[in-house]
Amino acid sequence: MTYQAPAELVDALRGANKILCVSHINADGDAYGSLLGLMWMLRVVGKQVTPAMPDPVIQEFEFLPGAGEIIPPQAVGAIYDLIVCLDMSSQDRMGAVFDPVRHAGIPLAVIDHHVTNTRFGSVNWVEANCAATCQMLTVLADALDIPIDRQIAVCLLTGIVTDTLCFRTSNTTPDVLEAAMRLQRAGAELPAIVQRTLNRLPFNTLRLWAPVLARVQLREGVVWAGATNAELNAAGHEDDDLRLNSVLSSVNEADMSAVFTEKVNDNGEPVVECSFRAKPGFNVGDLAFRLGGGGHAPASGCTVPGTLDQVIEQVIPMMIEERRRQLDAMS
Amino acid sequence: MTYQAPAELVDALRGANKILCVSHINADGDAYGSLLGLMWMLRVVGKQVTPAMPDPVIQEFEFLPGAGEIIPPQAVGAIYDLIVCLDMSSQDRMGAVFDPVRHAGIPLAVIDHHVTNTRFGSVNWVEANCAATCQMLTVLADALDIPIDRQIAVCLLTGIVTDTLCFRTSNTTPDVLEAAMRLQRAGAELPAIVQRTLNRLPFNTLRLWAPVLARVQLREGVVWAGATNAELNAAGHEDDDLRLNSVLSSVNEADMSAVFTEKVNDNGEPVVECSFRAKPGFNVGDLAFRLGGGGHAPASGCTVPGTLDQVIEQVIPMMIEERRRQLDAMS
Repeated sequence: MTYQAPAELVDALRGANKILCVSHINADGDAYGSLLGLMWMLRVVGKQVTPAMPDPVIQEFEFLPGAGEIIPPQAVGAIYDLIVCLDMSSQDRMGAVFDPVRHAGIPLAVIDHHVTNTRFGSVNWVEANCAATCQMLTVLADALDIPIDRQIAVCLLTGIVTDTLCFRTSNTTPDVLEAAMRLQRAGAELPAIVQRTLNRLPFNTLRLWAPVLARVQLREGVVWAGATNAELNAAGHEDDDLRLNSVLSSVNEADMSAVFTEKVNDNGEPVVECSFRAKPGFNVGDLAFRLGGGGHAPASGCTVPGTLDQVIEQVIPMMIEERRRQLDAMS
Repeated sequence: MTYQAPAELVDALRGANKILCVSHINADGDAYGSLLGLMWMLRVVGKQVTPAMPDPVIQEFEFLPGAGEIIPPQAVGAIYDLIVCLDMSSQDRMGAVFDPVRHAGIPLAVIDHHVTNTRFGSVNWVEANCAATCQMLTVLADALDIPIDRQIAVCLLTGIVTDTLCFRTSNTTPDVLEAAMRLQRAGAELPAIVQRTLNRLPFNTLRLWAPVLARVQLREGVVWAGATNAELNAAGHEDDDLRLNSVLSSVNEADMSAVFTEKVNDNGEPVVECSFRAKPGFNVGDLAFRLGGGGHAPASGCTVPGTLDQVIEQVIPMMIEERRRQLDAMS
């Protein structure tokens, strides 16, 4: 067996009755999938589980069984035997769900796959080589002798599919496929999950690609494109995601890619959300970290103050420099 | 076991020594993968195998082990114990590799996953529920007691990855993931194969998306876009594939999508290659068939004479009508 849930975690879960499960701000499929997957798992063994999220549930993941039960920060109680922190590298990612004063003294169990995890729990299980926290939960189910039913399987497969972009990321090991196959056999429909999560492109977003791609640029193995706030507003975008990351990251001639979307912050000032991707062997994690953001080597992001043009002018030379440095280090 | 190789096929392969393996015109990843995968498999058990293709090997698949051994039609001999026809629904898909006169009397063994297969062989193994011919070959390897080594695994996983668009098509069953996992464990690197086959977008093609997407249209759940021959030539496109199929087919508001590319045929007349996709529950196979082409329910294609505008004007009303009919049949 490649991975094993630590005995302290298994004991902490077995010993607790009233459990709060929490996932992170700006939740993605692995956040929702692991939160609800673990909720269903622990209910099988009779635990009283409350799922909480700092932000409202986004429409894309409302289809997950149990999504309607997720409570907001203001509904979170003060008395739990255990708080399980899912898919988050640091305590602040719980947002307003966790209150250090009210929740003082409640043990925190951390289950996460981010290499940057700060081990902020009383019990920490971090597997940086797992492609998704949901992959870890298939291992935990075995450790707790919990049979995986259809509800659990749908939640966990959603996290694996979204975090690996449907098995396309470089951390898609045979263990990932094995976990996914098992979840499919337990009743989760892979094509339906792909359809509901990854194959979702609003027509208005696609139309916005025309002006954005008319300005796409490639220089020294770095490809980038961006949308102004005016363009995003005019297109009536349903969300703020241009959904161009996987497109730009597959450009043959590029080792790194960047997608920029200009927003207006609460003070009415322009900021640009930067989303970076790197081909296998390259790393955009450090770049995002230096710009105040975070992420993994192949995918990272940050928010930089300034207009679209200003931020591109600042960030692209840094990326080109970063790529040169990484190429030098390879040779 | 879900699938089983027929005993007649196993006997035919065991009984033959000099074997010609052939795959189809306009070869894709499953054509190359099954051709070379079977070649390596049969060589393990001492067969003298020649791989042949009607068209020259395309650059994208030159990385496959054995790709350099594929011979063109003019190099094909006349004397073989058996001709194995891979991933093709009818005999004409062998192009000039098969000569009905020269090759008269040689038994044909057909291994294919197309529902439209005409059973033109002396032995026919057709599994329309398999996602790829390469998936069938993992079953055949077991029937022939052939251990899957790294070379075989790379070839077979390439066919599975390309035919399922990396496990995104609706026929991606747990058996597909199991076969893929097994091939990964045998040494095939999934991320590398994805990188070499699916994540390949020439920058010039991406630049062409800007004018093409400026004209994208959505009507009654049908989304379409197309490029003129002049645009394709001006962009210096490396191949004739706009690579917009998976983009348009993921538009939320659309049940069917079409990508049109205008070409000039050998007589100097304009023709348009049409590529159709349907969401789960819809079918574009019949439409392509009526227009002289072919394919499966979720993906099909055809070539229609006329300019880009003429063909769009002819085909789109047919698609809209087809979708209405299918919606009616559902309700």
